[in-house]
Amino acid sequence: MYTSETQIRVRYAETDQMGVVYYGNYAQYYEMGRAEAIRQLGFTYRELEALGIKMPVTAMSSRYLRPALYDDLLTIKTTLRKLPEGSVIEFHHEVYNEGGELLNTGSVSLVFYDFEKREKVKMHPQMREKLEIFF
Amino acid sequence: MYTSETQIRVRYAETDQMGVVYYGNYAQYYEMGRAEAIRQLGFTYRELEALGIKMPVTAMSSRYLRPALYDDLLTIKTTLRKLPEGSVIEFHHEVYNEGGELLNTGSVSLVFYDFEKREKVKMHPQMREKLEIFF
Amino acid sequence: MYTSETQIRVRYAETDQMGVVYYGNYAQYYEMGRAEAIRQLGFTYRELEALGIKMPVTAMSSRYLRPALYDDLLTIKTTLRKLPEGSVIEFHHEVYNEGGELLNTGSVSLVFYDFEKREKVKMHPQMREKLEIFF
Amino acid sequence: MYTSETQIRVRYAETDQMGVVYYGNYAQYYEMGRAEAIRQLGFTYRELEALGIKMPVTAMSSRYLRPALYDDLLTIKTTLRKLPEGSVIEFHHEVYNEGGELLNTGSVSLVFYDFEKREKVKMHPQMREKLEIFF
Repeated sequence: MYTSETQIRVRYAETDQMGVVYYGNYAQYYEMGRAEAIRQLGFTYRELEALGIKMPVTAMSSRYLRPALYDDLLTIKTTLRKLPEGSVIEFHHEVYNEGGELLNTGSVSLVFYDFEKREKVKMHPQMREKLEIFF
Repeated sequence: MYTSETQIRVRYAETDQMGVVYYGNYAQYYEMGRAEAIRQLGFTYRELEALGIKMPVTAMSSRYLRPALYDDLLTIKTTLRKLPEGSVIEFHHEVYNEGGELLNTGSVSLVFYDFEKREKVKMHPQMREKLEIFF
Repeated sequence: MYTSETQIRVRYAETDQMGVVYYGNYAQYYEMGRAEAIRQLGFTYRELEALGIKMPVTAMSSRYLRPALYDDLLTIKTTLRKLPEGSVIEFHHEVYNEGGELLNTGSVSLVFYDFEKREKVKMHPQMREKLEIFF
Repeated sequence: MYTSETQIRVRYAETDQMGVVYYGNYAQYYEMGRAEAIRQLGFTYRELEALGIKMPVTAMSSRYLRPALYDDLLTIKTTLRKLPEGSVIEFHHEVYNEGGELLNTGSVSLVFYDFEKREKVKMHPQMREKLEIFF
């Protein structure tokens, strides 16, 4: 299992007139969670794209337990429960506020896609190598 | 069953550098879908809020089948499969492009919440009355 | 002078906890205004990109006079005051609510840019031809 | 003069299909810039709202010099050139990438507004006290 954490400050732009973070904005928090998870491996998603691999999202699910509020300093906990065998990778996310309350859980599945070959591929060896030691 | 359709033009702002609609923006399309579904009943979510009822989202799930592109005129098909008995309502959404291709499916659960009483409530009688005839 | 109008329904996502449209979202309204202005000429910005021309923004300014509210049906009035001579085009926008109140004014300057040649270019002849008759 | 700096990592969501940060997203960067400028004074905008004061934006202008790219770690430099006398405060922003290139400049004017009294007010004494020493 590979787990990583990053922090995000809630922007005013991200709230709605209910006075809480709009439900659609958690997708961005998950994105930041997985980007930092990859960065903490010593790699970046930007580098992956430079290698010709993009990672479109194929599925997402979210559960909203408690609202996130303006200016909250959120902790996004991102977990890879298993090493991908095929071309799909699934990240699990938990969003906590400063009081340690669990606000939201979500999971996002993405596919490794070679844009030149126009086909799904397996995880890049460079990324696999970094991840393997956690499993 | 109650079904409603609305159309949305994809904004440049909604695309990302992959050249497709960013996965987090579908939540806004679903929002527009359910807002128009309620409006087509002869009622609006804005009126519901004026009656003291808000509808925070409790769960969402999405499947991304094909990309939506800039300037696509999308059709959002929104379905209520069953009349809510308790305080939760679940909308199902399908997103089609002009060629009739199914791009995305999603579902969103929301809870009827009375902000003054600070408690979950059942669907407002005024909304129930409009919906009942479809079930 | 060339003037065009389009309508936009305010999304819940676009409001913030002040209960009004977040100031940063007007840029998207301006974008929709100029996209529809071009479409009403019998041309689209998407087609322009297909011809290899993109239009990055070089400057924007906004004045916020009255708030736009959730579910408001806004009218975006977009005006081209003069036909561009060089590579820059400037659109002026006015945003009105259903009551005819002027909520916001803004202007956006964009440059015609040929991404293959990596240089600024003049307005595409196909677009110029459509516009000339208004000046 | 009061100057403050904060850093923001560009999100994938913030890019558009031109491969750069969408022009409308700089408003959020300015927001983060001024929020951190206030926080570094030992105060927060959230606290100001708790005191009944909100700060709607009345004007914004931006100049786009060079594109910001995905994953760039931006520095937002926020400056208050003069201490507000009346009810309006104007922040100036400069956005730099990691290479120290100036990408964007902007200014945002906001008004101190007492939502209970429904009128413009002067800067809150608590905020004024923190700022005065810089002028």
